[in-house]
Amino acid sequence: MKDSEDSKMTPWEVSGKVDYDKIMTKFGTEPIDQNIINSLSSLTGGDVHFMLRRGIFFTHRDLGWLLQQISAGEKFYLYTGRGPSDHTHIGHLVPWVFTKWLQDKFHAKLIFQITDDEKFMFNEDLDPDTTHSLALDNALDIVALGFDPKLTEIMIDTDRSGLLYPQAIRIAKKITFSTVKATFGFDVSANIGMIFYTSMQAVPAMIESVRAGKNVPCLIPYGIDQDPHFRIARDVLPRLGYLKPASIMSIFIPPLSGVDGKMSSSDPNNAIFVTDSESVVRKKINKYAFSGGRTSVEEHRKLGGNPEIDVSFQWLKIMFEPDDVKLKKIHDDYISGSLLSGEMKSLLIERVNAFLKRHQELRERAKNILPEFLAEH
Amino acid sequence: MKDSEDSKMTPWEVSGKVDYDKIMTKFGTEPIDQNIINSLSSLTGGDVHFMLRRGIFFTHRDLGWLLQQISAGEKFYLYTGRGPSDHTHIGHLVPWVFTKWLQDKFHAKLIFQITDDEKFMFNEDLDPDTTHSLALDNALDIVALGFDPKLTEIMIDTDRSGLLYPQAIRIAKKITFSTVKATFGFDVSANIGMIFYTSMQAVPAMIESVRAGKNVPCLIPYGIDQDPHFRIARDVLPRLGYLKPASIMSIFIPPLSGVDGKMSSSDPNNAIFVTDSESVVRKKINKYAFSGGRTSVEEHRKLGGNPEIDVSFQWLKIMFEPDDVKLKKIHDDYISGSLLSGEMKSLLIERVNAFLKRHQELRERAKNILPEFLAEH
Repeated sequence: MKDSEDSKMTPWEVSGKVDYDKIMTKFGTEPIDQNIINSLSSLTGGDVHFMLRRGIFFTHRDLGWLLQQISAGEKFYLYTGRGPSDHTHIGHLVPWVFTKWLQDKFHAKLIFQITDDEKFMFNEDLDPDTTHSLALDNALDIVALGFDPKLTEIMIDTDRSGLLYPQAIRIAKKITFSTVKATFGFDVSANIGMIFYTSMQAVPAMIESVRAGKNVPCLIPYGIDQDPHFRIARDVLPRLGYLKPASIMSIFIPPLSGVDGKMSSSDPNNAIFVTDSESVVRKKINKYAFSGGRTSVEEHRKLGGNPEIDVSFQWLKIMFEPDDVKLKKIHDDYISGSLLSGEMKSLLIERVNAFLKRHQELRERAKNILPEFLAEH
Repeated sequence: MKDSEDSKMTPWEVSGKVDYDKIMTKFGTEPIDQNIINSLSSLTGGDVHFMLRRGIFFTHRDLGWLLQQISAGEKFYLYTGRGPSDHTHIGHLVPWVFTKWLQDKFHAKLIFQITDDEKFMFNEDLDPDTTHSLALDNALDIVALGFDPKLTEIMIDTDRSGLLYPQAIRIAKKITFSTVKATFGFDVSANIGMIFYTSMQAVPAMIESVRAGKNVPCLIPYGIDQDPHFRIARDVLPRLGYLKPASIMSIFIPPLSGVDGKMSSSDPNNAIFVTDSESVVRKKINKYAFSGGRTSVEEHRKLGGNPEIDVSFQWLKIMFEPDDVKLKKIHDDYISGSLLSGEMKSLLIERVNAFLKRHQELRERAKNILPEFLAEH
C-alpha cells in the first residue's frame, strides 16, 4: 500500500512515515482497547506486557473472540515467523519477545516458520544455500530467547516442505493471480514462486488443526507489514473448513536514522544486529541514532528534547526499558532538558549491550538444543 | 495452442483434429528420421521398437546428441509421468510401454513422477485425498508393466514434496507469470497453484544431476501435449547449470469415437480403462469404436474399408499388434474388403482382453512390490 508519495508498505519493503491509525482503517483491523487489555489481564493474573500497555502491539483481529475461547477453557496455539535474508537484528526481536511472553503466560504451543523459500525467491542476490544457512543462524536467536523446547516447533520451509507443500496446494487452489496482484501489487513480471508463496505462509495458521483433525484456534503476532498474507489466510481458511486465525500486530522498531520506516538489514548502520559487538553498538548508536535533542547543550538544558522523534528513546520504549516508572522519568527528564541527548544514548547503549551480552551467550548454548526445536512435534 | 477453430491442445485438454506436422514446426521439434533410428538400432543390437518404426513416437529434441553421449559410454536416465485424475486407461500406457522398452535396452534409471498436486489444483471437482489415492492406484499400473524395481523410482508429488519443492523454487525463480501466461494461456483468474505447478514438473528433469552433484543427461518420453512444460524446463535448466533434457514425443491414442483428439477419462465410453472387464471391453469396442468400414457388408466386400480412420486398426497399429507383417496383412485385407469391420473389432477385442487379463493379474501382484518403487533410491 502507498500512504503518500514517499511512504510504502508491503511485506517486503517499508519506507517513509507510517500512519498506524490510517493502516487500521485501511486494513480493517481493530485497535487494542481497554476491554481487550482487561480481558487479557484477567487471564494472566494481572500481568499485561509493556508492549501492550504502550501500544507497541496496537491492533488485532478477533483477539476478543480468542480471549473468550481461552476463558471458556479452549486451547489455542501461537504462530509467528521470520524471513531469513540476513542476521537477526533488534527489530526482528520485538514480536518474538512478545510471543515468548504469550507462550509463558498461556503455555501455548508455538509454530515458528522460517521462510527461506520466500527470501530466496524474492531476492535476486540470494541463493538457496545462503537462505538456508541464514535460517539456521536466525533459529539460534529464536532459541536464545528462551522459548519452551517442548512447546515450540521451528519450521524451516525448505526442510519442512514435505509437511507444508501438500497443505499449501489446498490453499493455493482458492487464490487467483488477481488476488495476489491486488494484495501484493505483483505484475506479470513476478516470478511464479513469489506468486505461489503466500500459500506457504498461510499453512502454519491451520497446521495444528490439520494435525489434530479438529479446529484449534490460532493467534498470530506479527509486524503489521505482514498483514496482507494473513488477510488472504483469513479469507481462505474458512473455505477449507478451518477457523480464521486471530492476530495481534505491532508497529515497527525504527531504524537508527529516524522514526520513519522500519529497521532493515540493507543499511547496516541503520540496524543493530544481535551479533554486533559492544563497541560496534556503542559506535552505531552514538554516531547514527537520530536524536530529538537540541543543537547545543545550552539550548537543550533550556528548551528540552523531543522523545517522540528521538530514536534512542523510542528503542527504550519499544524494547529496552520495560519499567514504566523508569521510562516516564527518562521521558520527562528529556523534555525538561535535564537528560541530555548523549546521556539518552548512553542509557540505550548500556541496555542494548547488557541484552546482547546475555543473548550472545544464550545463542552459543542454543546450538546444542536447536535440533529439539527443529524436530516435528 | 489452437490449430484451427475446432481443435485445441494444452497439457490439460486435447480436442479436434491434431496436425502433428504442424505441431513439430510450431513447437520447433525434430522429426525422428532414419539417422536417429539407425543410431538407436546400433545401440540396441538392431532392435527398434515398433512405436518408433511406425511413427507413434514421431518427434524429439536432442535425441541425436543423447545417442552420441550413450555411444561414448555416458550414463543417462529416463523421466516420464502421470497426472492421476482417474483410473489408468489404454492411452496412458503408450508412452509407458515405450519407456519400459528404453529402460530394458539401456538399463537406465527411470524417475516416474505422479502429479497428484497438478490434478488437484487444475480440477475443481478433485480433492487431495482422491488424487492421492488415484496416484497409488495408477502406480500399480506402472509397476504391472514390469519396470525394474531397482532402476525405477515412482515419485508421488505430495509424498515427495520434501525432495521436490526445494528444487522447484530454484526453477520457479526463473519463470515469470508472463511466461506461463504465454505458454499455457493462463489469465489472471488462474489459481496460484496452477501458476507455480510447472516448476514441480521440471524438477525430475534435473533431479539425478542434483543428487549426483554433476550433470547426468535425461531423456523424457511423453505425449506431445506435455511439451509446453518441457520447453520451459529446457529454457530454465541451463540457467541453473544443468543440461537441457532430451525428449521423445508420441502422438495420442485416439478415443473410441474417432481418430481426432486424445483418449480421455471424461467420457468412459470413449476410453478403455485397465480395470475394465472382458465383457465391458467387448461391448465398448463393438458399440463405440469408430469404424472405417462401409455401410453394408456387400459394399465393404466390393470397395474395402479405410484403416486410416478406423479406430480399431489404429489401436492395433499404435499398441496392440507389434508384428509388422501381421499388421500389414490386417491393413491390406481391410482395404481389399476381405476383412470386415466386425472382424477388425474382434481382432482388437481379443488383443485388448489378452493384454488386460495379464495386466490385471500383474496389477494385483504389484501391490506387494509397490513400496520398493515408492522408496527413495
